[in-house]
Amino acid sequence: MTNSGSDRQRPGEFALIAQLFAPLATSAAAFGLADDAAIATPPAGYDLVVTADAIVEGVHFFSDDPPEMIAKKALRVNLSDLAAKGCNPSGYLLTLSLPERIGMHWLESFVGGLREDQEEFGISLLGGDTTATPGPLTIAITAFGHVPGGAMLRRSGAKVGDLVFVSGTIGDAGGGLACLKGEGSGLTPEEQHFLIRRFQIPEPRARLGPVLIGLASASLDVSDGLLADLGHIADASRVRIEILARKLPLSSAAQRLWPNARESVVRAAGAGDDYEIAFTAPPEHRSDIMQRATAAKTTVSEIGRVLSGKGIALLDSEGKEISVKHAGYTHF
Amino acid sequence: MTNSGSDRQRPGEFALIAQLFAPLATSAAAFGLADDAAIATPPAGYDLVVTADAIVEGVHFFSDDPPEMIAKKALRVNLSDLAAKGCNPSGYLLTLSLPERIGMHWLESFVGGLREDQEEFGISLLGGDTTATPGPLTIAITAFGHVPGGAMLRRSGAKVGDLVFVSGTIGDAGGGLACLKGEGSGLTPEEQHFLIRRFQIPEPRARLGPVLIGLASASLDVSDGLLADLGHIADASRVRIEILARKLPLSSAAQRLWPNARESVVRAAGAGDDYEIAFTAPPEHRSDIMQRATAAKTTVSEIGRVLSGKGIALLDSEGKEISVKHAGYTHF
Repeated sequence: MTNSGSDRQRPGEFALIAQLFAPLATSAAAFGLADDAAIATPPAGYDLVVTADAIVEGVHFFSDDPPEMIAKKALRVNLSDLAAKGCNPSGYLLTLSLPERIGMHWLESFVGGLREDQEEFGISLLGGDTTATPGPLTIAITAFGHVPGGAMLRRSGAKVGDLVFVSGTIGDAGGGLACLKGEGSGLTPEEQHFLIRRFQIPEPRARLGPVLIGLASASLDVSDGLLADLGHIADASRVRIEILARKLPLSSAAQRLWPNARESVVRAAGAGDDYEIAFTAPPEHRSDIMQRATAAKTTVSEIGRVLSGKGIALLDSEGKEISVKHAGYTHF
Repeated sequence: MTNSGSDRQRPGEFALIAQLFAPLATSAAAFGLADDAAIATPPAGYDLVVTADAIVEGVHFFSDDPPEMIAKKALRVNLSDLAAKGCNPSGYLLTLSLPERIGMHWLESFVGGLREDQEEFGISLLGGDTTATPGPLTIAITAFGHVPGGAMLRRSGAKVGDLVFVSGTIGDAGGGLACLKGEGSGLTPEEQHFLIRRFQIPEPRARLGPVLIGLASASLDVSDGLLADLGHIADASRVRIEILARKLPLSSAAQRLWPNARESVVRAAGAGDDYEIAFTAPPEHRSDIMQRATAAKTTVSEIGRVLSGKGIALLDSEGKEISVKHAGYTHF
C-alpha cells in the first residue's frame, strides 16, 4: 500500500492509515502491504480475471452513510461482476482518495466493513494507494478472481434457442430507493427495511456464479437494470431477447410497494442496482442449473428466451411489448 | 470498461467515452472493453505482479497541465513501480472520476497520451470504470506485469555487505519543481526545460528493472526521495544504509541550479518524484550489473553500502553525516 504524494503532505496521518489497513492483507502474496506491489498469480490451469469499479461520495453513496456500508458497497459491486463471470474471488486492490475531514474513527469503521466482507467472501486485500483529495471521498477497487482456463462467462455467448434466467428477485433496490424518497408508506417497517437494505448493500451471488461454468452461455450482473443489462447480452451476442413479464421474480415487498402488476413489472425491469446474475443457457441445461442453484442456496427463475434478431423486449401475457422508459436509469 | 452509476446520469456522453477508449484495448484479453472483466493470466512459470497508484488534480498535477502529460504521469508512476520490482509490464485498468467540465476534446488528448505510452511500453488497456464526480479529476490505475516465478524484487532482501546503486540522475524532478517556482533564472532555457520535463513526466526504467532479476537483492523506485526510499529498504531489510554524498549522480542542469555542492546533494537526496530505481546487490554482481545496465541503455551509479544496524545516512567526504531535513517532503 503506497501513499502517492499525499504522505508528503500528511505524513504521520498516512502512516497511521497504512497501519490500519495492514491486518487486511491476510494473503502472503500481499507482503503485509509493506512492498510496492503484490503477487496475483492464479493457480495452474486457471485464468486470472480482473475488474474495476469505483464509487464516489454524492454519486453512488451519501456522505452520512455508515462507513461499514460504504466499504461493503465498494467491494461488492466488484465481487458481483466477478460472480457473474463465473469466478471465485481471491483479492483486491483499494485506492482511496481521502478528503481531509475523514478521520481515523471513520476509517476504523470502514476497515471493519472490509474485514467482515473479506471473511464472508474469502478474499484478501493485496495493496493499493491512499491519496489526499480536495474533493469527495472516492473509492476505486480492482478485484481479482479465478476461473478455469478459458471458461470465463462472457456477454457474447448467447445462442438462438437459449433460455434466459435471473437469480433472486429484481426491483428490490429500486424499491428501496423509492422508499428512501417517501414511497412505501403502505409497507410494514420490515418490508421497507428489506427493500432499503437491498438498495444499500449489494448481495453478490458469489456461490451461484462459479457453478454456472459449463452451463451458462452468456452472463452478467444486473447493475444498470434487468432490461438494460440483458440488452447488453443481446447486443454482444447479436441475438434478440424476449422476457415474459409474468415470469419476473418480484419480492413480496416489491409487489406490495407496487400493487399494480403492470407498474411493478415496469419499475422492476427498469431499476438498477439489483446485482443479481442474468444469464442465458441452452434448454438442455435447465435442470442442471436448477439443481446447482439449489445446492448454492440461490433461487433462479427462467424468465425468457433468445431468438434471432436484435434488441430486448418485455412481453405481456398476450405477447405484446410493454414499454419500459429509461431502462437502466435511476434518479440517485 | 463499465460505467458505474454514471451512465445513468450522462448516458450518451459515457457511451461516447467508452468508444473513445476501446481502441486502447489492444490485447485480446481485454475483450475490446465490451465485457465486465478482463483476463490477466501470466505466462506459465511467471508471476503476475499488480500495483495501484492514483493521481488527483490539484494534488499530483495542475488543472491546466496538458491532458497527454497527465495521462502519461498516471500510467508511468505505476510502470515505474513495476520496473523496480523487476517486471515487464503487460497491461492496466483505468478508473476515471470525471468532473462535468472535462469534455470530449480533452479526453481525446488524454487517450492520445495513453496510446503513445502503450506503444512505448508494450502494454494494453484491459478495462476499468468511468464515474462522474463533483470533485477534482481523479485517475486511478492498476498496472500488471510479469516476472519469473518467485523472483519479484522486494524491499526486504538487502544484506550486510551489499552495495547500493541508483539509476540515472537524482534531484532533477525536484529541480524542475524549483524552476516552476521561479528558481533557476541562471539556467539556460534548455536546462530549465530538461528539469521541468523530468518533474512533469516520469521516465520509468522499464528496460533496467527486468535485467536486475538474479542480481539485485532489494529494489524500489524513488518516488518519495532517494533517502526516504532507501530508508524503506533499510527498514524492510533490517539493515543500515550509508550513502556517499560525492557519489550521488546529479545532472549538469541540477548542478548548475544548485552550484553549492553540499546544497545540491541535500536538495537532490531529499526531493521526490525521481522515478529512478534504487537497489542493493552483492559486490560480486557489480560488473554484471554495469554490463546489463549498459545493454539496457541506462546509467547506473554505485552510491553506498549496506551495514548492520538500522536507518539511512548521507555521509560527506570525511564520513560525517549530512542532515537532510524533510526527506521525501515536497511542497507541491
